[in-house]
Amino acid sequence: MEALVTLCKRRGFIFQSSEIYGGYAGFFDFGPLGVELKRNLKDVWWQDLVHGRDDVVGLDSSIIMHPEIWRASGHVGGFSDPMVDCKESKKRYRADQLFFAPVRVDGETIGYVSVEEKDGMEAEATEKAQTLKRKLSVQGELEPVVLREYTEAREDEYALIPSPATGKPGSLMAPRQFNLMFETKVGPLADASAVAYLRPETAQGIFQSYKNVVDTGRVKIPFGIAQVGKAFRNEITPRNFIFRSREFEQMELEYFIDPDEETWPAAYRYWIDWCKNWLVSLGIPASMVGEDVHPAEKLSHYSKGTTDLTFEFPFGRQELWGIACRGDFDLSQHQKHSGKSMEFFDEMRKQAGKEPFRYIPHVIEPSLGVDRLFLAVLTAAYQEDSVPNEKGEPEKRTVLRLHPRLAPFKAAVFPLVKNKPELVEKARGLYESLRRRWNIDWDVAGAIGRRYRRQDEIGTPFGITVDFETIEKDGAVTIRDRDTTQQERIPLEGVEAWLAERLR
Amino acid sequence: MEALVTLCKRRGFIFQSSEIYGGYAGFFDFGPLGVELKRNLKDVWWQDLVHGRDDVVGLDSSIIMHPEIWRASGHVGGFSDPMVDCKESKKRYRADQLFFAPVRVDGETIGYVSVEEKDGMEAEATEKAQTLKRKLSVQGELEPVVLREYTEAREDEYALIPSPATGKPGSLMAPRQFNLMFETKVGPLADASAVAYLRPETAQGIFQSYKNVVDTGRVKIPFGIAQVGKAFRNEITPRNFIFRSREFEQMELEYFIDPDEETWPAAYRYWIDWCKNWLVSLGIPASMVGEDVHPAEKLSHYSKGTTDLTFEFPFGRQELWGIACRGDFDLSQHQKHSGKSMEFFDEMRKQAGKEPFRYIPHVIEPSLGVDRLFLAVLTAAYQEDSVPNEKGEPEKRTVLRLHPRLAPFKAAVFPLVKNKPELVEKARGLYESLRRRWNIDWDVAGAIGRRYRRQDEIGTPFGITVDFETIEKDGAVTIRDRDTTQQERIPLEGVEAWLAERLR
Repeated sequence: MEALVTLCKRRGFIFQSSEIYGGYAGFFDFGPLGVELKRNLKDVWWQDLVHGRDDVVGLDSSIIMHPEIWRASGHVGGFSDPMVDCKESKKRYRADQLFFAPVRVDGETIGYVSVEEKDGMEAEATEKAQTLKRKLSVQGELEPVVLREYTEAREDEYALIPSPATGKPGSLMAPRQFNLMFETKVGPLADASAVAYLRPETAQGIFQSYKNVVDTGRVKIPFGIAQVGKAFRNEITPRNFIFRSREFEQMELEYFIDPDEETWPAAYRYWIDWCKNWLVSLGIPASMVGEDVHPAEKLSHYSKGTTDLTFEFPFGRQELWGIACRGDFDLSQHQKHSGKSMEFFDEMRKQAGKEPFRYIPHVIEPSLGVDRLFLAVLTAAYQEDSVPNEKGEPEKRTVLRLHPRLAPFKAAVFPLVKNKPELVEKARGLYESLRRRWNIDWDVAGAIGRRYRRQDEIGTPFGITVDFETIEKDGAVTIRDRDTTQQERIPLEGVEAWLAERLR
Repeated sequence: MEALVTLCKRRGFIFQSSEIYGGYAGFFDFGPLGVELKRNLKDVWWQDLVHGRDDVVGLDSSIIMHPEIWRASGHVGGFSDPMVDCKESKKRYRADQLFFAPVRVDGETIGYVSVEEKDGMEAEATEKAQTLKRKLSVQGELEPVVLREYTEAREDEYALIPSPATGKPGSLMAPRQFNLMFETKVGPLADASAVAYLRPETAQGIFQSYKNVVDTGRVKIPFGIAQVGKAFRNEITPRNFIFRSREFEQMELEYFIDPDEETWPAAYRYWIDWCKNWLVSLGIPASMVGEDVHPAEKLSHYSKGTTDLTFEFPFGRQELWGIACRGDFDLSQHQKHSGKSMEFFDEMRKQAGKEPFRYIPHVIEPSLGVDRLFLAVLTAAYQEDSVPNEKGEPEKRTVLRLHPRLAPFKAAVFPLVKNKPELVEKARGLYESLRRRWNIDWDVAGAIGRRYRRQDEIGTPFGITVDFETIEKDGAVTIRDRDTTQQERIPLEGVEAWLAERLR
């Protein structure tokens, strides 16, 4: 993880936001290379899902919408995390990321310990328990420490559990709900009627615009509406780099289906598979992708099923893509709150004499975070290996094995030397013609081996070198493959077609 | 304008945000076709400015940043519009959009009238003056009504000017400054230290990340950093459709140059011309684009010059693209507020023995609103003309003469009839192969003439028809040009190359 974060900073993929002001927790900037990779992730998703299918259309709804939308969706009432305050240090914790345990010696509780959620927190808690035992000079055998979430603490325990900030009991409060929506005020009136929210998800933007799309878009059930855009959550504890940030980007699809009981299981399975295959098509190894099926008792009352596609991040297996069957909950809520009918008139079913032919569609929602996908793609692509240098000796290199569709630069063009105008001009001509179609890098500085390494590190799949033979003999160039480091000789005029073949 | 707004709604380009909840003033959604046009505008700008040039890199900074940035930039102190309250109606006006005049008869002031800014407001004010004269039964000759902005009213006039809402004097207050930044709070602490802002421009995101780009990006002065992204302004009176909305998108370039006195005028002119030529390259007639040079006395103290490229919108000539020479103001301010050096070490100047070689760069800022460009492009493209129908009779049509690079669909594929499987299959094959590369529409419904009209109205430049001859005789298809309505016969296997030639 550390190597990845360092590479991201060093090569201009990701910076801390507001770094000159000491940073701003939970916000990030995408630098010159990061913005290209992020654009490619979004473009590829859009191409495959919207342009590549007959049954999905796109949408771009506003970030700030009518506040009633968030009452209808349940976010005003319920989109919150449990938070616990430490009165003394003024620190705040997510109660479900704070763990505690009684310290028991020979069957007796001698006090409590607490730790923040992390790898190895059990060992940390045991150590703290031993320290407490020593401090209190208690004899006997320490029982194994069993951690529980602070959310599960009994009322009489609050005063006994030490704050991780101070190590002393008595300053932690009872957990309370903290709404994660960022609030703002719209319009010149600063009263309560002006309160609005930054969307915490793009999904509701789709539901509130659904009727307009149906009325104007010539769509037939089943069909999907896809959206890419920013969302905001005022996380209590943003962490794991761009995995959990306060401002992030989502790619969400709402796929509307008929309400027949037998329709949704097939559609659900279809979209789980589609999502998984799509990840694999971008070079993410299937072995790093898992399926985490939410147990029935943890589902919302309206939900028929939710599966998370997980990914093996450097900090553990975590959710990457959630596929949820939300029934007709969202559209029904908006129908109720807006008083506008969300019913779909299904011409096909009517012709087939199938009831109902006027219904509120059900929906399957595959919801993907762009930033999490960015991190997953980098994690899967990052590798340190050894390749022979010009003298044939093995040399360590860092390489990003990014899929060509995702690589910031599709190729780099190098004139072998920079002081031979004829050669540079030939290379420049090739560069200019290729970049009419793709993002191409140009690099004249340093030994060719060093230029290869520089491109390897940023994931450029192909390095194209114009050398003396190009201008003196064969009119061909050397194309070097990032992954195999194999080189191939291709005639100049064939380069575009050669690349086009490999960049689809 | 009305025809345009209607088309936007009817064909799914633009919807009101939250329409089922009665709309939400100043916020819009881009529907299935609008999102494609908007993507194309942003992509074309990015391709031409970032991918197409060696001296510009991209960036994607966060919308919420450290609040100190907005103190450094002057936005916390000064990014406001003058607002005036009507005590009685509780309505609020932008004071610079509210006009008033004394009503004078034979040299005597008999009262005041007020109007909101709009076309024909002078006539409206004169009518109101006549009504007042009649009402007060004053004899004599009404002097011509001379309107002034409410911001120029004297203190003793406030109580005399009627509110446009009530028609009565005495309820309008003195103008006061209203800050246009949307405020929110970041983090679980809800105190003053948590206050943050939604960025009112993307520009400061570039300045605060400038140092990171310089440190990691291998850039040499002169160079630019380009960014596309959302910005938010709590406009008192959003209006003119998407021209002045509260949530919008910007495409900004900060082009950093050396501080020599002779450098900036050339760079300034260069970017004005570049921007103008770029608009023309997208099919906007040069005759609709004007240059509005800000007079020296209206410039900020740090500004060396600002030119607005204007466009003839349906509601008048308005700013489309501002090109500003901002000197070293922004970077200097951030250096001062952050304590971090913003100096650039200019290796080339040092080698050339030119002073200074360590300096804070100056900047030229071409700043373009995506939504305004969207509206300008639609305005220029929208046309109602007459073309012969299948029987050769003239028929009215609505056509969007969008540049092929901007059109939502690059082409539409039509099987001439839908009940001949062999023909449909051939057309479908062509469709599938073309959409691996572009966004292509497929339409089987209705007479071919009607399908042409449907595509004309959404700006699809080429209609490709697979007919009986295709499968029975020549293996060729008919390609019909949207603008000329001319048809051309092209062999099936040549269609991709034919299109590629015309879509660059």
